[in-house]
Amino acid sequence: MYSFTNDYSEGAHPRILKAMMETNLAQNAGYSLDCHTSHAVSLIRKEIDDPHADIHMITGGTQTNLIVISAALRPYQAVIAPATGHINVHETGAIEATGHKVLAVDTRDGKLTPALIQQALDFHTDEHMVQPKMVYISNSTEVGTQYSKAELEALSRICRLKNLYLFMDGARMGSALTSPINDLTLADIARLTDIFYIGGTKNGALFGEALVIRREELKPDFRFMIKQRGAMLAKGWLLGIQFEELFQNNLFYEMASHANAMAGKLRAALTGMGYSFAYDSHTNQLFPVFSNDLIEKLAKNFTFNMDKKIDETHSSIRLVTSWATAEEGVDELIRFLEDNSR
Amino acid sequence: MYSFTNDYSEGAHPRILKAMMETNLAQNAGYSLDCHTSHAVSLIRKEIDDPHADIHMITGGTQTNLIVISAALRPYQAVIAPATGHINVHETGAIEATGHKVLAVDTRDGKLTPALIQQALDFHTDEHMVQPKMVYISNSTEVGTQYSKAELEALSRICRLKNLYLFMDGARMGSALTSPINDLTLADIARLTDIFYIGGTKNGALFGEALVIRREELKPDFRFMIKQRGAMLAKGWLLGIQFEELFQNNLFYEMASHANAMAGKLRAALTGMGYSFAYDSHTNQLFPVFSNDLIEKLAKNFTFNMDKKIDETHSSIRLVTSWATAEEGVDELIRFLEDNSR
Amino acid sequence: MYSFTNDYSEGAHPRILKAMMETNLAQNAGYSLDCHTSHAVSLIRKEIDDPHADIHMITGGTQTNLIVISAALRPYQAVIAPATGHINVHETGAIEATGHKVLAVDTRDGKLTPALIQQALDFHTDEHMVQPKMVYISNSTEVGTQYSKAELEALSRICRLKNLYLFMDGARMGSALTSPINDLTLADIARLTDIFYIGGTKNGALFGEALVIRREELKPDFRFMIKQRGAMLAKGWLLGIQFEELFQNNLFYEMASHANAMAGKLRAALTGMGYSFAYDSHTNQLFPVFSNDLIEKLAKNFTFNMDKKIDETHSSIRLVTSWATAEEGVDELIRFLEDNSR
Amino acid sequence: MYSFTNDYSEGAHPRILKAMMETNLAQNAGYSLDCHTSHAVSLIRKEIDDPHADIHMITGGTQTNLIVISAALRPYQAVIAPATGHINVHETGAIEATGHKVLAVDTRDGKLTPALIQQALDFHTDEHMVQPKMVYISNSTEVGTQYSKAELEALSRICRLKNLYLFMDGARMGSALTSPINDLTLADIARLTDIFYIGGTKNGALFGEALVIRREELKPDFRFMIKQRGAMLAKGWLLGIQFEELFQNNLFYEMASHANAMAGKLRAALTGMGYSFAYDSHTNQLFPVFSNDLIEKLAKNFTFNMDKKIDETHSSIRLVTSWATAEEGVDELIRFLEDNSR
Repeated sequence: MYSFTNDYSEGAHPRILKAMMETNLAQNAGYSLDCHTSHAVSLIRKEIDDPHADIHMITGGTQTNLIVISAALRPYQAVIAPATGHINVHETGAIEATGHKVLAVDTRDGKLTPALIQQALDFHTDEHMVQPKMVYISNSTEVGTQYSKAELEALSRICRLKNLYLFMDGARMGSALTSPINDLTLADIARLTDIFYIGGTKNGALFGEALVIRREELKPDFRFMIKQRGAMLAKGWLLGIQFEELFQNNLFYEMASHANAMAGKLRAALTGMGYSFAYDSHTNQLFPVFSNDLIEKLAKNFTFNMDKKIDETHSSIRLVTSWATAEEGVDELIRFLEDNSR
Repeated sequence: MYSFTNDYSEGAHPRILKAMMETNLAQNAGYSLDCHTSHAVSLIRKEIDDPHADIHMITGGTQTNLIVISAALRPYQAVIAPATGHINVHETGAIEATGHKVLAVDTRDGKLTPALIQQALDFHTDEHMVQPKMVYISNSTEVGTQYSKAELEALSRICRLKNLYLFMDGARMGSALTSPINDLTLADIARLTDIFYIGGTKNGALFGEALVIRREELKPDFRFMIKQRGAMLAKGWLLGIQFEELFQNNLFYEMASHANAMAGKLRAALTGMGYSFAYDSHTNQLFPVFSNDLIEKLAKNFTFNMDKKIDETHSSIRLVTSWATAEEGVDELIRFLEDNSR
Repeated sequence: MYSFTNDYSEGAHPRILKAMMETNLAQNAGYSLDCHTSHAVSLIRKEIDDPHADIHMITGGTQTNLIVISAALRPYQAVIAPATGHINVHETGAIEATGHKVLAVDTRDGKLTPALIQQALDFHTDEHMVQPKMVYISNSTEVGTQYSKAELEALSRICRLKNLYLFMDGARMGSALTSPINDLTLADIARLTDIFYIGGTKNGALFGEALVIRREELKPDFRFMIKQRGAMLAKGWLLGIQFEELFQNNLFYEMASHANAMAGKLRAALTGMGYSFAYDSHTNQLFPVFSNDLIEKLAKNFTFNMDKKIDETHSSIRLVTSWATAEEGVDELIRFLEDNSR
Repeated sequence: MYSFTNDYSEGAHPRILKAMMETNLAQNAGYSLDCHTSHAVSLIRKEIDDPHADIHMITGGTQTNLIVISAALRPYQAVIAPATGHINVHETGAIEATGHKVLAVDTRDGKLTPALIQQALDFHTDEHMVQPKMVYISNSTEVGTQYSKAELEALSRICRLKNLYLFMDGARMGSALTSPINDLTLADIARLTDIFYIGGTKNGALFGEALVIRREELKPDFRFMIKQRGAMLAKGWLLGIQFEELFQNNLFYEMASHANAMAGKLRAALTGMGYSFAYDSHTNQLFPVFSNDLIEKLAKNFTFNMDKKIDETHSSIRLVTSWATAEEGVDELIRFLEDNSR
């Protein structure tokens, strides 16, 4: 059965594996102190147009989130996040396990706004309550939506005004940046946030997130934090090699574009068949609303995740495409829906 | 200015202070291993009709909450609480600081129901999310409401069925149990919950909460938890002496009854003047809705806390009575409102 | 049986209780925002000769230690302490429970030296190890010894040079400052440390430690830390009243002097009888070495704690005097030893 | 310069990379719920002769250690470890960051004994101290030594008698099991411990440790713990594939044997030249004692780590061989030493 369950069902782009093969027997310094990592860092610094950014490569997203948040906050400080945010729902309380409250904010579309942030600030008035100090957003979000440049500028503005750190989870950064409605660059994101990461795991690497620290006060001793959380990979050059490949010859963008193109084709077909979506997404995640009967049939032929109940007879599901999604898989799904609709 | 800010603005009932004076120079074993504490424990065991309950006395409520929750849960487990619950709002993230997520549930009246608990359980399906394992309720609640016997039985039933610990914060237990609409006894509460505490701080003690552990698996090594969190009072007999007085000669109930009587008088007068309340409370906390103009005048003559904005021109405030509230203070407030209304 | 078990076996000095009685029914602001606390703060500021120190009153020592250390350190930082230090042995892992390693250093007499600190610094070289950032000392120490001005100046010097916070646990500060061999004042201690506290619990208060923060960077938001750890007493003025009494009319020093005088009498008598001591202490804790036979007899007539095994037939015990120790109790113990020695 | 710095300076055995290549484009279930992982699990279960063991694959050793310890212990419980243990020295306080004290025990050779464990138990008497509940050992140890069957049986016996969990860090398990003086099998280790892991990172995998849980009470909900600590790899089959290769066709033992053979050759040559060793190791780590002059020359031609100062003119260094160490590298080092000795 073809899988639309997630964007990490396959290994890595062949160019990445090839680079690993070629360097396999060379001796490297451990713990990311090797030359591949430093080369990857310089490629990313160029891409974000900041020669002074601190950049660390970490195996996975939950790990990165918990390290960043526990490094940045004092014990009584909290992070504001959309209720749908990965840190609030899908990390088994990883942030709380480091001692910090996630202030979950209900949103319409998985995105925070200055007004929502202001509300959270207004509610927290004194030392009997946590102190909000960081804003967590994802781009693209957990429900496939994304921030425009104007929206991110507005968030950046309120965060600077209120002295909040703005942290962007970029596990699906590639898909956001290559979306047809995107108007942001990595350099914009670097300029507008304090700390963010560029996801490799969900965009064709075996694993790896490149964390970019822009704010000076968040830089010191960061490697202590990585090590303490068990996230300092012994053979750290494996991360370096992957990000070298991702940011050479445009591979990072190419792979994300393919994922988006596959989702776009699916989206157009579904729209054509008259289906609606739980969220208006232009990235590699789609949330179509189907009848429960159709979903049952679909599940016998494809794999995917349920999203949520819409009404008594309808639900939304999540369909995810990736750098490796075969166009035949998409076509097969479209045919199946055409055959089984109405 | 007379204060209706809270129920811990005065010291302790004179009988409590007298008992402290009389025993002041006697040598006692430290850390609650003294005879006053063991006598107080036996008085409470009798009151709750359980000779086998483990009972520990702890200085304050936040401390008790964080010890109980961190003792009961494994690292990935979470506690379900009303969004208005003390642990969710007013403890500066004390629970999260022990590593656990508070699953905040929106309620109408500060009270959980089986349906709300079931919803939280349904949402948490696998190891990518925290595992709900405890239910936290307050009686009376932070908004002055309280549980009936039928409601508590229903909560107890679902918790046992789903293997959740039911934990009752009884910081204002006295006010709940002596409320005119109450139909619960301490023995009922002991029977229906797994762990709960009886508040002294807000009911005429200098400080102190008596924690009652009923569930066998929560009993072992509890004193280690108390000590580790810095909550094992060196001169622990001070807690023992206070609870001896509270549970001799009915003092605990007498003091709470007075607080409720004062609130009842105020409530009747306000209702008579046509005021409404943000929450329908019959305990020692009232949340009347006033015009912002009236609130401004009131604040020049009495002290109290704001509750919340009701509309552009109205807000609710919180008025709290205590064991020590002078009837003259209440009368003065009523007169002031009569003079300044409409 | 007369108890030499500890210095917190009795209640409080009568002047303290009297002050509590007299103010019992006055309404006070909660959470240490009252006038007694601010008066006590100004008395202590005068005593330490620093009008800008931040001063917070906290119920007990373990609580104070865990709040200070978790407030001061970033997650990967550690505190250097003597192996005998209270935080290393007798707090049930309270410091580790806040996430920080205690770097225990073996000492001869419970005291740290610049050389011992330098050794700990030399061992910790990179991000694979914790980063030492604070030095914890007690005065008087857990084994009854104390720091001279020259010793404290030397510690202060290395801490400033190496950018380490110097934190003094003063649970038994009174006994240290009134010891016959002492040459330090509270003002010296304030000048030479970054943060320290003045113990009330072990010197005639019902409970309470006055924490003095001198270093600017440790001051911000400290009340959030106190609240989060459950240490913000609702009726905080109880702490204020006690420290008002302690630092009016010399009561703090008077009580400690009495405890030292009683220990001094005992020490002289024991020395006269030819006994040796496990530690050379001139404070209110003595550690005489007795034969195990004698200890057995002694334990039938007095209560005290064992210290440690000296050889197959001898052990040291701990004898503690307090502000309330009756001279008759001391005389009785001396007589008993005279009657039972050799 | 040839590197003897560690055993993770090269990538992975070519058979492992080849297996990754061959399966690269297949769609797999995420989070270790794939068929490669379940195959690897059954291979290991067979190897340890326990069809019921729970087996989880985790990226690295520090991560595994912190997950195991925080999953097994209640908040006030502690783990006994050799002072040289990885968790005590080289994990930046990772264990303390989960809230638990490491009770470090000085040893002669990096190994615990029943007597040392008993001493730690005797010291911890009540709730004012942490409660020892787990014993942590490494095999081979951080100083290259290893446990004999008799030694491990003795440790196992005292742990079962005292109800302590016995946890073996097997980051260098391969080298221990293929050492010429070894008399243990993986099945023995499974039988004698409660939980242990088999290291891949330091024995020819790209990364990965296979954690084996034998004790029933440690099994439930373990995947929640892995996820919460950010250690659940999205493309978990990468771990599965590696352990499939390691435990097919003897690769795990073959690679470790090579590392040991290279160290053995070096050890024989050094002994022949009259050098002594700081620790008597028969695994892939050697700690020869050299003059500081010789070390300085050596450092210009090879890379390695310093161990410790022996006297004013001598130090020990650490030389590590691996599955990939070239015999030519070893020969070159021997020649260099022959040329430069005395």
